[in-house]
Amino acid sequence: MTQMNGFFFPRTASGAASLIPSPPWYYSGDLLTVEYRTDPDRVAELLPAPLELAAEDPGAVALIWADWQSCSSSREELLDPVRSQYKEAFVVVRCSFEGRTYSRCVYIWVDKDFAIARGMHQGYPKKLGQMWQTRPHAFPQASPQIGPGGRFGATLAAADRRLAEAVVTLREESDTNGFVNGHPMAHHRVYPDIAGQGDAYAELIESGASAFQGGQAWRGDAELRLFEAPTEELARLEVDEVIGGYFRQVGVEWNGGRSLAHLSGGSL
Amino acid sequence: MTQMNGFFFPRTASGAASLIPSPPWYYSGDLLTVEYRTDPDRVAELLPAPLELAAEDPGAVALIWADWQSCSSSREELLDPVRSQYKEAFVVVRCSFEGRTYSRCVYIWVDKDFAIARGMHQGYPKKLGQMWQTRPHAFPQASPQIGPGGRFGATLAAADRRLAEAVVTLREESDTNGFVNGHPMAHHRVYPDIAGQGDAYAELIESGASAFQGGQAWRGDAELRLFEAPTEELARLEVDEVIGGYFRQVGVEWNGGRSLAHLSGGSL
Amino acid sequence: MTQMNGFFFPRTASGAASLIPSPPWYYSGDLLTVEYRTDPDRVAELLPAPLELAAEDPGAVALIWADWQSCSSSREELLDPVRSQYKEAFVVVRCSFEGRTYSRCVYIWVDKDFAIARGMHQGYPKKLGQMWQTRPHAFPQASPQIGPGGRFGATLAAADRRLAEAVVTLREESDTNGFVNGHPMAHHRVYPDIAGQGDAYAELIESGASAFQGGQAWRGDAELRLFEAPTEELARLEVDEVIGGYFRQVGVEWNGGRSLAHLSGGSL
Amino acid sequence: MTQMNGFFFPRTASGAASLIPSPPWYYSGDLLTVEYRTDPDRVAELLPAPLELAAEDPGAVALIWADWQSCSSSREELLDPVRSQYKEAFVVVRCSFEGRTYSRCVYIWVDKDFAIARGMHQGYPKKLGQMWQTRPHAFPQASPQIGPGGRFGATLAAADRRLAEAVVTLREESDTNGFVNGHPMAHHRVYPDIAGQGDAYAELIESGASAFQGGQAWRGDAELRLFEAPTEELARLEVDEVIGGYFRQVGVEWNGGRSLAHLSGGSL
Repeated sequence: MTQMNGFFFPRTASGAASLIPSPPWYYSGDLLTVEYRTDPDRVAELLPAPLELAAEDPGAVALIWADWQSCSSSREELLDPVRSQYKEAFVVVRCSFEGRTYSRCVYIWVDKDFAIARGMHQGYPKKLGQMWQTRPHAFPQASPQIGPGGRFGATLAAADRRLAEAVVTLREESDTNGFVNGHPMAHHRVYPDIAGQGDAYAELIESGASAFQGGQAWRGDAELRLFEAPTEELARLEVDEVIGGYFRQVGVEWNGGRSLAHLSGGSL
Repeated sequence: MTQMNGFFFPRTASGAASLIPSPPWYYSGDLLTVEYRTDPDRVAELLPAPLELAAEDPGAVALIWADWQSCSSSREELLDPVRSQYKEAFVVVRCSFEGRTYSRCVYIWVDKDFAIARGMHQGYPKKLGQMWQTRPHAFPQASPQIGPGGRFGATLAAADRRLAEAVVTLREESDTNGFVNGHPMAHHRVYPDIAGQGDAYAELIESGASAFQGGQAWRGDAELRLFEAPTEELARLEVDEVIGGYFRQVGVEWNGGRSLAHLSGGSL
Repeated sequence: MTQMNGFFFPRTASGAASLIPSPPWYYSGDLLTVEYRTDPDRVAELLPAPLELAAEDPGAVALIWADWQSCSSSREELLDPVRSQYKEAFVVVRCSFEGRTYSRCVYIWVDKDFAIARGMHQGYPKKLGQMWQTRPHAFPQASPQIGPGGRFGATLAAADRRLAEAVVTLREESDTNGFVNGHPMAHHRVYPDIAGQGDAYAELIESGASAFQGGQAWRGDAELRLFEAPTEELARLEVDEVIGGYFRQVGVEWNGGRSLAHLSGGSL
Repeated sequence: MTQMNGFFFPRTASGAASLIPSPPWYYSGDLLTVEYRTDPDRVAELLPAPLELAAEDPGAVALIWADWQSCSSSREELLDPVRSQYKEAFVVVRCSFEGRTYSRCVYIWVDKDFAIARGMHQGYPKKLGQMWQTRPHAFPQASPQIGPGGRFGATLAAADRRLAEAVVTLREESDTNGFVNGHPMAHHRVYPDIAGQGDAYAELIESGASAFQGGQAWRGDAELRLFEAPTEELARLEVDEVIGGYFRQVGVEWNGGRSLAHLSGGSL
């Protein structure tokens, strides 16, 4: 009888083919964030029961671009960086569950399969997209500086359509990198029933960074444009009022989460 | 309380953002198949209990390239073909479960996210890859013909490494398109536990085409080369003896499957 | 003294690294064409002297999607189809030179480097883009048929922005595949001066297929939408009146052209 | 009569569609370099007359990966970074022309069309490839540090085949970033004749940075592996002896070059 190994599929005797290794997973990257307010009803549409709108500022949304390098404990991915680098853009709202405030990623696009698989595990609803964000660099010939007046652009596209564009102009140092993505994440993990009757599996989980380091955060002015697409609903989260733009470099470790609730089939 | 809709994530009030629509799913495409024999022990390594080696020709393997156009019942994807066309390469072995012979996809690569999501649902262990296969065409200036002497090449790469190359030279009409991929599929669907303790969910399911049309199958000679890669184990299924190569055009409908067994946590 | 070989760069002693082999080049593919009329002044803007507007129907434009398989005389690319298959979308107008009517490609996007290099040689102003067009297939599960009512979609994107979308619904057999792309091509080949003073080289050349086979052409109704982008001017060729849509499968051989005029530096 | 504008094709009345804007061009990026010695005869094979082998260390080769952000004088590309960021890997040797030593790029791969077009102008023989190189980052969770022991990997692939892999382990500060790529570049710019008789245009040009800033260079140990591919000759420059590995961050301005010689047709 074969003992199968591998954290994720495909599983094999050795586990070497697994699309992702076991946590912990490590990340170094740059975050470009735009926070804004939309109609709270539009946020509520994305919160299945028993989740509820956050009590305070319930229409707040964060659209975050991240330019990552990531690895497992072996760090071997860092020397074969096609397996290490990826970009993403994700949309975070807040919600309330059993009296506690959570962040929740409602849309996310990445550009590598290992990132999709990690998202499956963590409950991030990942699609493939094309993301670009301006990089800071030691030399200014073709780069903004991390400081007053530094301008960073970011774009998101999927299925050959541009979905979002942002420009953030840094103004000053900031105590925070925004507030919308500042709570533990409350995510669903679901498996539709193979026979087509609702979900065979549905679970609400909580997770967050197991360790975190952050550089000086900067805030400034932000412009954000969202575009319609036939298979996307990002533009439904209309930009009523921009709260601000942020830039921060971070180092993160992720090492699992905990189950909040197992939901009966079809309930999500 | 919000009623969430959408077959797959991300789920929303309308369901429009779901990465994939509900089945049935429809496919038109060309299959290029190489069947060969490897050491049955290498196949057994990929069969978790209670699956066992097939009784007959247990070391038979099919490596299949497919060039697909696909859609949902709405057929709207066909007019926005970035959402419809995809390529894949997959490796099929056979196994036995409760006395019945099944086919089983042990490795598979695709080039679109909707194909990954359909694979998650169906238990195909999909990764992203780059697949190419020679196309037949009405005019021969830069195309083989589907007939004696027609030569079709196919390649598979992932993470910037070539994993497999095949050339099939058609010789004659064939009653079959090979035998390895001819049974219902027995696949696992798994969700690793969010706290890191084995699997939170593991299920063995059966599925197959709910409707099928196939053109004249052709068989011929095949060459196949497999290459090593640090995160792949395809080359471990060494080519001991080529059985043959096949080409066939098919139309397929898929509309769900059935659960064979729910496995206790960590058992897979 | 080393004798360098190779039709194009990089040149080497053996010539094996050349991005493209010597002509003749061979093509098998499907063409989806939308012809329409725009303001002739917008066409004139794209015709450098001594080219002039065509005498008849000077505002006619063809936007053509092509799904190609291509090869050199060795046909070896067909068995390694990453080097053989590519997609393109191109915009053709007509013009007059020394009393003769020519077709002229004013914009074109492709998805492979060998196609860019062939375009450099032939005077096609190629950029990279993402092109998709619905494919006909022997089985209708996820495919239109080549016949009355058959609907084909096509899209073009570059730099993560959608530039054009078309839908063609076939109605009847047609004697032609349109008329705009039916003449020899009159193209410029230019090399800007390395010191920044106009062009070091500028030539007007004529070329066309050295051999051609075409299947039955079909015509029908067409919808076409063009979108703005900061580095593109396709949308400036506004759709005033759709002439029609066409579908045809073709086989083509290309084997060079002839020089029409060498232009003095900076004249283009 | 229309006045055409645009530095490169496609040219239009406004010039807005040009694949690249006029120089000067600006770059900020990270260079990872491996220098080694190969058989000088292999270098000589890549030097068309009147170029000759460099007098000193004629078999020296530099394989350089670069992770760039780039822009024109408008800097607008920086806010739409799909038009600004690109990666490349290139191979440099040295040569002698009229008694002066030049660097010469003999092979190069990039991942954007604007980079191909700039290369056409500058005489870099660019193909499309997939390049990855480890990035330094402020936080070490998934990043090497620029300092003793910092390990950087780099890979190059084209046409779904891996062509080169390197690992550089930094050891100490260095006065230079290597010596092979330290001279003005001597490049050819060629246009094959449209009628197939040798070259219609062939020019030897010299160019280099018009302004340059560099951070502290680091040197260390390097491993380099080159792989065969049917349309590449990089592996022919066999690694006989590794000289060293280097890492440096730079800012560069490029603003044209000068013509060294116009070559008669077919002479290159």
